[in-house]
Amino acid sequence: MRTVYVNGEYLPEDQAKVSVFDRGFLFADGVYEVTSVLDGKLIDFAGHAKRLQRSMDELDMKAAIDMDDLLGIHRELVVRNDLSEGLIYLQVTRGAADRDFLYPAEDTPPTIVLFTQAKPGLAANPMAKTGMKIVTVPDRRWGRRDIKTVQLLYPSMGKMAAKAQGADDAWMVEDGAVTEGTSNNAYIVKDGVIVTRHLGEEILHGITRKAVLALAREAQMKVEERAFTLEEALQADEAFITSASSFVMPVVSIDGETVGTGKPGKIVGRLREIYLEEMRKAAV
Amino acid sequence: MRTVYVNGEYLPEDQAKVSVFDRGFLFADGVYEVTSVLDGKLIDFAGHAKRLQRSMDELDMKAAIDMDDLLGIHRELVVRNDLSEGLIYLQVTRGAADRDFLYPAEDTPPTIVLFTQAKPGLAANPMAKTGMKIVTVPDRRWGRRDIKTVQLLYPSMGKMAAKAQGADDAWMVEDGAVTEGTSNNAYIVKDGVIVTRHLGEEILHGITRKAVLALAREAQMKVEERAFTLEEALQADEAFITSASSFVMPVVSIDGETVGTGKPGKIVGRLREIYLEEMRKAAV
Repeated sequence: MRTVYVNGEYLPEDQAKVSVFDRGFLFADGVYEVTSVLDGKLIDFAGHAKRLQRSMDELDMKAAIDMDDLLGIHRELVVRNDLSEGLIYLQVTRGAADRDFLYPAEDTPPTIVLFTQAKPGLAANPMAKTGMKIVTVPDRRWGRRDIKTVQLLYPSMGKMAAKAQGADDAWMVEDGAVTEGTSNNAYIVKDGVIVTRHLGEEILHGITRKAVLALAREAQMKVEERAFTLEEALQADEAFITSASSFVMPVVSIDGETVGTGKPGKIVGRLREIYLEEMRKAAV
Repeated sequence: MRTVYVNGEYLPEDQAKVSVFDRGFLFADGVYEVTSVLDGKLIDFAGHAKRLQRSMDELDMKAAIDMDDLLGIHRELVVRNDLSEGLIYLQVTRGAADRDFLYPAEDTPPTIVLFTQAKPGLAANPMAKTGMKIVTVPDRRWGRRDIKTVQLLYPSMGKMAAKAQGADDAWMVEDGAVTEGTSNNAYIVKDGVIVTRHLGEEILHGITRKAVLALAREAQMKVEERAFTLEEALQADEAFITSASSFVMPVVSIDGETVGTGKPGKIVGRLREIYLEEMRKAAV
């Protein structure tokens, strides 16, 4: 049985509970991060900690979270759960208070929950060799997708829609352009140029996205940060996604149509290799 | 201390908890209803039960909820909490399962939570005499507002924005038209005609809205169900909202501009009177 962290306590998972009055439960008034663990070490923890603080700031969550304490909790969970390869999920909510649309008093203690998910073979995911099948769905999420909130019902519905069509995931399309995947950023490659949506309120500011784009530029690859259409994606040479849990993962078909050769491309393969190598080195 | 219902048990409120793995907490994968209680009786329970089932159906929540059992739980909470006037909140989620965007197995037990909120003076709310001040905010919610999910962060932000401007609530505006309030439906009256947004995916299908419109038509009032602009609202003779907890409540200013005479109008006053009278009669 896993050991889970809830508000200062390490508990067996079946005792890990929050109040029914928690604003995360009643209002989706919470933010989260997922950090990968490889070889028992955290991948890009600093990036996740920084984004967590940004999400909280954007939502006027005043709770002071000490990022060093948070790092300590992550490490403790790795040890207590003997986690070699997998994920650590972290959620912070505005805390528990009698139900009211108005935020509770600023000194209401936040709710902090962390748990692990063992994913043996995370880095050796065979999908990196075969590629993912993607379908598209309209992007009907709220307007502040740059804030990593737990309002994840629509992405969840998108993943189910993909499954129902025999696909692995869904990309979301708005005004003809791809925004992002249900839980990842979306990319295409055309004539050697990597294209991915520019940052803004329309997409999550992926931590893996940031690292991958920096590594691509270091490797002298060309990168364009701009909206791309579904038509462009269907005409691309390669396509891929990035996320903290899939790293860099090739996409080989979109809505049943083959992308490029129908096999994972060279650029995505190279990026995955570089990313994993550099991130393992920098893991803490 | 309140007694709260959680998955078959009646618990003191400080022991009323759900798993951190609950999909309501992790994915906002839950729906809710709020039913008013007057004189210890439930207002329009049948309407709320029906909408609950609709919300669940729209989200492919397969759990069978027996509405008679649910009525029994509502009544038991009224008794155990000695509730004369107030609200009963009900939330159903897709249950607890290890975190995955894909829905858990269909036989995963749903989470069912109910709690009371005592609101003495709910029906005699002095705001019915003075009227509410409203501000407007852009409507940036997701695309399926007809499903009553717990993705309530944006409405919560809207209520905070209203408070920051010294107002009581916010109306949301999309493409120049008012959709609805943060937790209520929005109406204007012009030349004796009551105008409120037509049903669709853009707004919640208010239970109070339905009852009020039926009563208005019975009373030979003219009703138009269509989108109305902010400009129309500012030129209206009267404005008001309806919700299960506010019933029918006049709006006397929008974005700092006076509506009509700046005092609650006659039509809204009449509707509130009729609604409360009829609903008290039909309460169970």
